[in-house]
Formats: sequence, C-alpha cells, structure tokens
Amino acid sequence: MNKYVNSMRSLGIQAIMKAGQGHTGMAMSACPITYTLFTKFINISKKNPKWLNRDRFVLSAGHGSMSLYSVLHFSGFISLKEIKNHKQKGSKTPGHPEYSSKNYIDCSTGPLGQGIGMGVGMAIAQSYLENKFKKIKSLVSHYTYVLVGDGDLQEGVCYETMSLAGKLNLNKLIVLHDSNDCQLDAKVNDAFNENLELRMKSINWDYIKTSNDPIDIENAIKLAKKNKKPTFIEVKTIIGEGTSEQGSNKAHGLKVDKNEISLFEKYYDIKVRNFKFDKSIYNHFISRVQNRGTKKYNKWIKDLEIAKSKYPKLVKELLNNFKNKFINIDKIINLDIINKNQATRDYVGQYFQQLYKSKINDTLFGSADLASATKTTFNIKNNFNSNKKYPEILYGIREFGMSSIQNGILLHGGLRSISSTFLSFADYMKSAIRIGAMMELPSSYIFTHDSYQVGGDGPTHQPYDQLPMLRSIQNVYVYRPCNEIETKYVFSNLFSSKNETSIGVFTRQPLNSNHPTDYNKCFMHGYELYKQSNPDIILCGSGSEIDLLFSVKKELENNNIKSRIVSIPCLQKFFNNDNKYISNLLKSKYGVFSIETSSDYLWYKIKDYIDNKHVHFGAYSFGESMDGKKLYEEKGFNKENIINIIKNQILK
Amino acid sequence: MNKYVNSMRSLGIQAIMKAGQGHTGMAMSACPITYTLFTKFINISKKNPKWLNRDRFVLSAGHGSMSLYSVLHFSGFISLKEIKNHKQKGSKTPGHPEYSSKNYIDCSTGPLGQGIGMGVGMAIAQSYLENKFKKIKSLVSHYTYVLVGDGDLQEGVCYETMSLAGKLNLNKLIVLHDSNDCQLDAKVNDAFNENLELRMKSINWDYIKTSNDPIDIENAIKLAKKNKKPTFIEVKTIIGEGTSEQGSNKAHGLKVDKNEISLFEKYYDIKVRNFKFDKSIYNHFISRVQNRGTKKYNKWIKDLEIAKSKYPKLVKELLNNFKNKFINIDKIINLDIINKNQATRDYVGQYFQQLYKSKINDTLFGSADLASATKTTFNIKNNFNSNKKYPEILYGIREFGMSSIQNGILLHGGLRSISSTFLSFADYMKSAIRIGAMMELPSSYIFTHDSYQVGGDGPTHQPYDQLPMLRSIQNVYVYRPCNEIETKYVFSNLFSSKNETSIGVFTRQPLNSNHPTDYNKCFMHGYELYKQSNPDIILCGSGSEIDLLFSVKKELENNNIKSRIVSIPCLQKFFNNDNKYISNLLKSKYGVFSIETSSDYLWYKIKDYIDNKHVHFGAYSFGESMDGKKLYEEKGFNKENIINIIKNQILK
Repeated sequence: MNKYVNSMRSLGIQAIMKAGQGHTGMAMSACPITYTLFTKFINISKKNPKWLNRDRFVLSAGHGSMSLYSVLHFSGFISLKEIKNHKQKGSKTPGHPEYSSKNYIDCSTGPLGQGIGMGVGMAIAQSYLENKFKKIKSLVSHYTYVLVGDGDLQEGVCYETMSLAGKLNLNKLIVLHDSNDCQLDAKVNDAFNENLELRMKSINWDYIKTSNDPIDIENAIKLAKKNKKPTFIEVKTIIGEGTSEQGSNKAHGLKVDKNEISLFEKYYDIKVRNFKFDKSIYNHFISRVQNRGTKKYNKWIKDLEIAKSKYPKLVKELLNNFKNKFINIDKIINLDIINKNQATRDYVGQYFQQLYKSKINDTLFGSADLASATKTTFNIKNNFNSNKKYPEILYGIREFGMSSIQNGILLHGGLRSISSTFLSFADYMKSAIRIGAMMELPSSYIFTHDSYQVGGDGPTHQPYDQLPMLRSIQNVYVYRPCNEIETKYVFSNLFSSKNETSIGVFTRQPLNSNHPTDYNKCFMHGYELYKQSNPDIILCGSGSEIDLLFSVKKELENNNIKSRIVSIPCLQKFFNNDNKYISNLLKSKYGVFSIETSSDYLWYKIKDYIDNKHVHFGAYSFGESMDGKKLYEEKGFNKENIINIIKNQILK
Repeated sequence: MNKYVNSMRSLGIQAIMKAGQGHTGMAMSACPITYTLFTKFINISKKNPKWLNRDRFVLSAGHGSMSLYSVLHFSGFISLKEIKNHKQKGSKTPGHPEYSSKNYIDCSTGPLGQGIGMGVGMAIAQSYLENKFKKIKSLVSHYTYVLVGDGDLQEGVCYETMSLAGKLNLNKLIVLHDSNDCQLDAKVNDAFNENLELRMKSINWDYIKTSNDPIDIENAIKLAKKNKKPTFIEVKTIIGEGTSEQGSNKAHGLKVDKNEISLFEKYYDIKVRNFKFDKSIYNHFISRVQNRGTKKYNKWIKDLEIAKSKYPKLVKELLNNFKNKFINIDKIINLDIINKNQATRDYVGQYFQQLYKSKINDTLFGSADLASATKTTFNIKNNFNSNKKYPEILYGIREFGMSSIQNGILLHGGLRSISSTFLSFADYMKSAIRIGAMMELPSSYIFTHDSYQVGGDGPTHQPYDQLPMLRSIQNVYVYRPCNEIETKYVFSNLFSSKNETSIGVFTRQPLNSNHPTDYNKCFMHGYELYKQSNPDIILCGSGSEIDLLFSVKKELENNNIKSRIVSIPCLQKFFNNDNKYISNLLKSKYGVFSIETSSDYLWYKIKDYIDNKHVHFGAYSFGESMDGKKLYEEKGFNKENIINIIKNQILK
C-alpha cells in the first residue's frame, strides 16, 4: 500500500478523533482518489488560490472532507493548526468543505447530489468561456473533477445534471466515484441496485471501472482525458478501511478512540505519532502538488503576457470578468421604447430583447423549459446546447439541476448567470438557492406566474407560499415590481449583484403602467408612490397589489379619507433603511394596511415601526383551477373586502 | 384511425377552445394511451369511485388532463356540463387533475415528475397490503398505471423513484410514456438525448417500445403484465396531432380557434358538432369501461363476502384500514418507561421501539438513509426492501422521492405513512409536501437535527429557514416538542392525522426533562408551562428554547421580575385557539418575549393579541461548523443576551 495515501488517512483519523466526531468511513476510503487527483492532475497554485485556470475540484460527498483537507495539508495549502481545529469555530476545516473567495475549496458541499450539479456548472462555464475567448482559449482550458459517493448518485439532482452534461458532451468533466458499497443505514445494494455502466451509457457518458490503486486510478483518468464525452470512473474502495467497522455501513460516522488507532496502526503498518509525519512525506506532496502546480501557473502567466500583447482587449475583458466586472446593463435597457400596460413578465421579454440586440455575451441564462413563458429568451433556436457560442442554455425540465448548475457557473467565475421558471417551481430549487446564498454567489433568478391570477392551471401552479420560503433565507432578496419602471430597477439588481442572491418575481397578467413611479426612488426598495401629506392611512403592497391599492385609495378618497400608497418592491431591503425613513413613510392618523398574495408574516415587521395600528392582508391557502382574475378577487384581493377591513380594523 | 380515440380528441379540442386556454398538444397525442388503458385494462366502478381494489391511474403529465377527462366522460364518469366547464370555478375538470375522496382522479398532478413518484408509492402500498393480507390477497391485487410525458422523465424525482421501484421489483407498476419528441421550448432532443431503453435496463425495469395504435399499446401492456419487473412502455405519439402545429413544440399550449377546428375535422375526417357525439360512441365506452368495471367490482364484492365468512377479522381490518381506522398508538406509547433528559430524537427512538414491540403493522415508515440518526427504525435489517412483509422502507438517499412516494402510499389508502430525514433536507421535499397538503393527505414526517446545535456539520446541516417554509403552506402543521411528554403529544398527532400534514421536529442534543408539562394541556398547542399569576412578562418559545427560557425566568426572578413561560409546541394551531384563551395567556404587565431558532415571522402574530409590547428573537442567518452548543449561544440564544433584550426593549 502507498505510504503517502496512508499518511493522509492517518492525518484524517487523528483529526476526527480530536474533533470528537466525523466521517471516518470516507476519510479512509476516498484518500487514494484525492491523492491521485492532486499529485498527478489537479493544477493549483500557492500564488493565487482562485487562479482562474486552476483545475476545479468538487467534493460532492462533502462529508469526506478530511480526504481533501489531508492532501491540501501535506501539499502546503492548509496548516496543521487548521487540521487540529477540524469542525471548530472559525476553522478552515469545517465539517463539510466551505467555499470562500480566498481558500482552496472550489465549492461548499454537504447536501448530497448538488456537488455534481455544481461541477457540471463549472464545466459549462469553462466550455462557454473557451468559445467566447477562442483566440486565447488556452487561458481557460482547465478540467473539472468531481468526487461523488454512493449517496450522490441516488439524488435526483445528480441524474438531472449528469443527463444534461451528457447531452452537452462536456468532455472536460471527469467524475470519480468512491464506490464503497455502503451507505449510512445499510449496504448500497439494499436500496440501490442500478447498473452504473448502463446508466452512464444511457446518458452519453463514458464509464471506466477501476481498483483503488493510485496507479489504476491514474490510468483511468488518463483514459478519460482522451474521451470526447464526460467520463465516470467507478473506483472500488473500502469504507472505513483499517477500522473496526471496515466494509460496514457502521464505518460511515464511526467514533475514533484509542482502540481504533491501534487497529489502524496494525492494518496499515504505520505509527500514529500525534500529527507528526516524516519530512519525506511532506516533500513528496509538495513537489507533486504545490511545485507542479506552481510551474503550471508560471507557464500560464507567461502565456497570459504573450496573449496580452497580441489581444490586449480580449485579455482585459477576460480578467475583468473574473473580477466580476461586467457590462452595465442599466445603459442598455431603455424604458422609453417599452410597450406599456403589460404583464411584468412581458417587460422581462422586452428587456431581454434589448439585451439581445446589444449582443451582451457575459451572462449565461436559461430556463427549465419555460423560457417561452417566462420570456427570458434571446432566440431560442440559437442555444448553447446546439452551439457553445450562444449564452442561452436549454436546461430541460430540470429545475433543481438548473439552480445547482447556476451555482457552479458562478463558482467558476468569469460569467453572470440568470435562470428562470415559474415561481411555484422554486420549490424544487430551494436547497440549491440556499447553498448559493450561503456561498454568497451573485445568483439571480427570474420567476414568473407569481400568484392566484395564474388561474386555470390550478393550485399546483398558483404560488402563495414561495415568497416566505425565499425571504426566510439569509442573503436571498426577493424583488416584486408593479410596473415597467420597477422592473427596470429589478433588472438593475439582478445584473449587478455582487454577493447576494437576487430573485425577480413577475406576473403573467397585465398591470397598469399609469402609476407615478420615480425610478431613482425605487432604490429605497420601498417608497411613497402616491404622495399624501398627513395621511389618514398608509397603504403598502408590492407587485400586482399596487393596482388594487390604487382602486382602494380612490374609494377611500370618495369617503374623504386621505391615503398614501407605499410601494415596496423589496420588502427585506426596505427594512434595511434607517428607522426614521421607514417611520416617516408609515406615519399616519389611523394606521397601516399592507397586502400581498403571499403567506409571508414578514409584513408584520411593519408593526415594529408604528405606534398605531397595522393590519396585513395576505394569502394563506391554495387556490383552484378557474379564471385567475376572479380567483384573486375571491381570495379577498378586491377593493370591497379591503375597504371593509380598513374600516373595521383600522379606522374604528 | 380509431374513431373512438378521435372522439376523445374532438371532445378535448372543444373543451380547450371553450376554456380559452389549455394544453392542446397532449390532449391530441395521449388519447390512444388513455383510451387503451381504460377500455381494456383499468377496472373502476360507478358503484364506488374509491373502490379499494380499483386499478390506480396517475396522469403524471397533468397538463394532459383532457386526455383523461375525455375517456371518463364517454364512459359515464364525468358529465358533459363538467367538460364544458373545463378550468372554471368549482369544476370537476380543472386545468390539472385534482384528487378528491369522491372523484375518479387518483392523484393531483401538475408539478412534473411527482406523478411517477406517487405511482411508485401506490404500487408499494399495494404490494405491502398484498403481503399483510396474504390470505385474502386477491382483494388488493390491482395494478398501478402511470402516464408520463417527456418532461416527467427529466425530473430528478422521477429517476429517484423509478430507481427504487426497480430495486423493489414492483411488477404491478406499468408506466406508459407519451413520447412525442417535443417539449415547451424545443425538441426533446435539444435538451435530452438519453437512451431510454438502456436507462430502463440500468434500473432493473423492462422496456417496450410501441406505436400509438391502440392494438399495439394493448399488446405491450399485456406483455408488461407478464413481466416480473416494473415495465416502461414508450409509445411513439405525435404532439398536437391534427392541429396546425402538429409535431412542433408550439403545439404544447396551442390556442384553439375556428381555423384549428376545421384543420382538425379535415385531418381526422370527423365532424365537430358542438360537444355532440353519436350514441354509438358513448355505448362503446360505457360497455368497455363502465360495464366491464362494474362486472369486476361485482365479482370483487362476491369475493369479499366469501372472504368475510372465512376470515372475518382480516376482512374487517382491511376495510377499517381503508376507512383510515388504525391502531390507536396513544395506548401503546408508555411515558413511564422512557429514559429522561435525552434529545427529543431519542424519545422518537424509544417510542419507535415501543411500537415495534407492539407489532404495529398498519404504518409504513422509512428514511432517506438516515433512520439510524433520526431514530425512526424498528429493526433496520428486517426491511421492506428485502421482504415485503416488513413495514420499514429503506428509501435510499432520495428525499424528494421519499415524500412523493409517501403521498402515493396515502393516496392508495389502507396505510399510514411516516418518513424521516434531517430538517435541513426538508428543502428537497418542499414541492411534495406542498402537493400532499393540497390533497389533504394525512402525511406525517419526522425531521431531526433541528437547529444550530447540530454544530460541527456546518451551515448546510443547520436549519433555521425550514420552519417558515413549512409553516407557510396551508394545511401543514409543525410540532416542535421540548421534552418527552410533548413528544408523546406530537406522536399522537403524527399518527392520528386525518387530512393534515403533520411534521414533528426534533433535536439532536439532549434537553431537560424537569419541566412541569401537563400532557393534556399540550393539546391546546400552546399552554402555561410555568404558572405565574399577574406576571410582569410572558416568555414564549418552543423545543430547545424552553430550557433557555427557564434559565431566563430564574434570572428574572433574581431581579424580582415575575414571568410566565408559555410553551408553544405548535405555533399555527396555537393561533386557532379562541382569542380569549390566547389573550389571557399572553397578558402581562410589560409584554411578551418570544424566541425560536428559526427565521419565522409568524411569531409576530402574537402582536395581534396584546396591547403592550411583544419582542421576538429568532434566527435569520446561516451557522458555521463548530460546537453546536456554542454556536447556539453565539447566535444570541443565551441567557445574557435575552435578559438584555427584555430589559432594554420590554421592561423600559
């Protein structure tokens, strides 16, 4: 057995013992794979952790984190202090790998299946950029490697994204499978008896099976690099190899004690010496990982200099894009040529056509087969799937896969990414949206068909519970515009996000354009739309409810009640304004009425800002298949009902 | 071409024209499939829409609803009035099929992929019951048929559940594929180039390909019924056949006008006569569907009578189970023999062992490979996957699939179902939980590892945003107990739900058992845990925060401030109590402090009930990989911070 691999295992088992808990099974089984990848193939450099042409590595089975930390430690990228601090506060070796803009982790993982999705996203980004920067393509020519466990392969998102990767012939994507036959509760075969070779062939992947001998793994990867398709390499390993539970599902999270350590020493014929290893071990890794990587990096820097002299503009653009500097779309989008009184999704369509005409090519966008309905298309016939020069991806009916791939595109860098579907189907994507927000990616979504007014397609297609789901996540901001001007403000946010997830929510049904929206005021995220000094009452809402509030306002006027309408296109950011701004805006004689077709109690936060009454009217129930406008009214979103609530609960 | 099939198409195109919108593509393409299924195979009876041994049919591609409504109409199960009312208010022909306990729809569908999951659940239920009631097994011997579109096959949940069905050899499950080569935005092949035959073989399914000729389809289904595995039948069809957009993705939601009708008439050589059809058409369907079904039903009734005389107890149990009458677990669960001061998940484990000893066999339960961690296991070695007599399903790492299958089990009837995973991974299941709640299924979940105290596994595994996601859905109730007594109350709810989704949320870390909980009071869903007359302040919370509030209470006492602790294990149901009960409980000198490790603003609803101040302290951010107890404290969930908030914001 390879003493270098065993040193990695030794480091892993000690770190897990010190932490008091950990995933021992994979820390033993996966080391031959990470060892081979990093010592032979993966190019990373100490000079720049986020070198744009580094090979990407995703540990999709995130619980195997020690198999990654150990190779990074011996190669000089993570200190021993950090290893000893595994899973502790502020450590750089958390339980599951966590991406940051400064470390050597390319991807946060943990929820299974999504790592492979993010890997597919990275490979998509690489292939698009290689095409976009054709003349200097060697500068973005890296591979993407993903290590998956048996659990990943059972998750739907894994099938979705691997299927798309097969369709796209992503030949620079290589997936290695730590195939150890065990999962947490049982043997893999107790719950999963797929023929992986057939599965891979059915989705247009190449399949290679190999032992866990580093030489076999190396040969398999070499073979994979010659393939014209993505390759799946099944590496037969032994879970918890060398522990008391070797080969058993109980090895998965096995607690490490002194007895385990002595079994380990016997099995590997190795001495465990309190995190001490021979210098020769370090030398082996440093020359093969760090020094090899640095050579590659230095070569790349030379190539960059040569390219700079030949194609200065192209190189500048490439480097800028990787610094998240993109075309400012605010100047491209022209409000004046918009057809008014449309559904907000139609403004999406019109703005997309303006972007298309401007030949913007620094943003990948796509839809889970609803681009024609969400209006997020340039020209659907010219798509990325048929030619990698086009930025429009046909994701297929794979919502979760799409959002996971979007995370991968953004992790890769050099591109923006926006994807779309119906708001209802955000449900499929929740976990990917969450992890994207956690990684502080500038992820943007366009969700249309935003409430009961979807109508005839029935309650499965009528969202009311999605806004609270999305707004509950730290760093996810939901924008819900009421007209073309607020839509422009939403686009400005969707395209300029730096480290936030931005979600634009749009209607299917037409809304009025005649509200006196001031574009600049939108950026307060909540503002006085209809002015009124010393109002009797404040009316707050977002999106389609602004039209409704306007009719309420007129009715109140007929009763000599003066109201102010406050449009709040981004409720969360509205509350980030200073207290005085909010309090002044909400100050009135009687109180505040707020309304939204969502079951979001975040609106109750308004109560924090006012002395007098606040009543919120929301949506807390499924709709039905019927005319959308009527359904909206029946759910209480009609002038008469609101006037009654206001009279009985505020103006009393 | 078959004139009966064409009459179905004619009805469909007219209904869609009348509705003003609809899914024309599949209303044309899928009719040969639904025609063959219902006229030749599916046994349903007018005498009892929910006849327990009827064949189950799931239209996974729910937008093809007219291909189902049309056959149900001609066979006498849906009136012409309802057909004319397609997609209108209160109609029995909504845009997507909707299950009710009284109609002939076995399953609500719409969000793609989940129909197949529910079909797998039905087939699982059938096979378990066939085993449980072995002596009278012919009484539950039906088949489950699922019709899928190309979109279904691209959804992750479809792969997950078909993979499990293959592992389980569910030979009474037959899936038919309306393979029309088109999806909404493009040709299927533009986004999806899988080899379906290989895919099916890789997951242990049989595969048959056939034309859309009803005779070919019939022969394929006959063949499928002889198979020992589940069978996938790919039926090559033409989307929107006979319309102007025949064979094009534009046919998907094609608007029907007079021109389309005349093209239709020409193509099918059929006269469209304002919803009028020859009596012979009706006769054909009535004899082949309704009369054939009724014969089968009458035969079943006879068999039932014979069985009753031989096995009266068994038959009574079978019939009771299908009336949702199950063993009352309240009498089985014994609080007195519980080990105290444990994590609430450990009470789950202890109660499960009590149920195991009682040999309860009317409930299927399982986990997405985390039963050992959620403690929801009887005896993992004796599982359903290895022998269909055991009620414990090893779902594999397929969370979405699991919840979708659970919906199918409950739709089938005759069983309860409970499934489990970590609370964080509820994210994967949101859409299935939503549709289960919409169908008013008695769906129950056990989610453990419920907050920051998960600790070392890091922010991907630390939930804080899941409770608002779940509580935002109509008909979903979240229970979060603080000790073994409240856990018993939660179990009582999980096992006795009639038409609600019940979710129990449990801790990984130990909690104190020494609170004076009164079991009966728990059923108010919020109650005075620590009594205090004329309190200065009210302290509200749930689950792990009760221990914390207790320490706060003691500290306040040291400062001569009298507090009452109100434990609220089910926040949503708490608000369903009458106003007086809530107001009295929350009445105090200064105000109310509430706390929960979630970003749920539903707590702000407390403000509605009190004149004086309410402050809520929640969780609105991701955690990190570190000691869970410390993390909990750092997020502000510690006595000192709370005392400060109370002093500065309420007691001022």
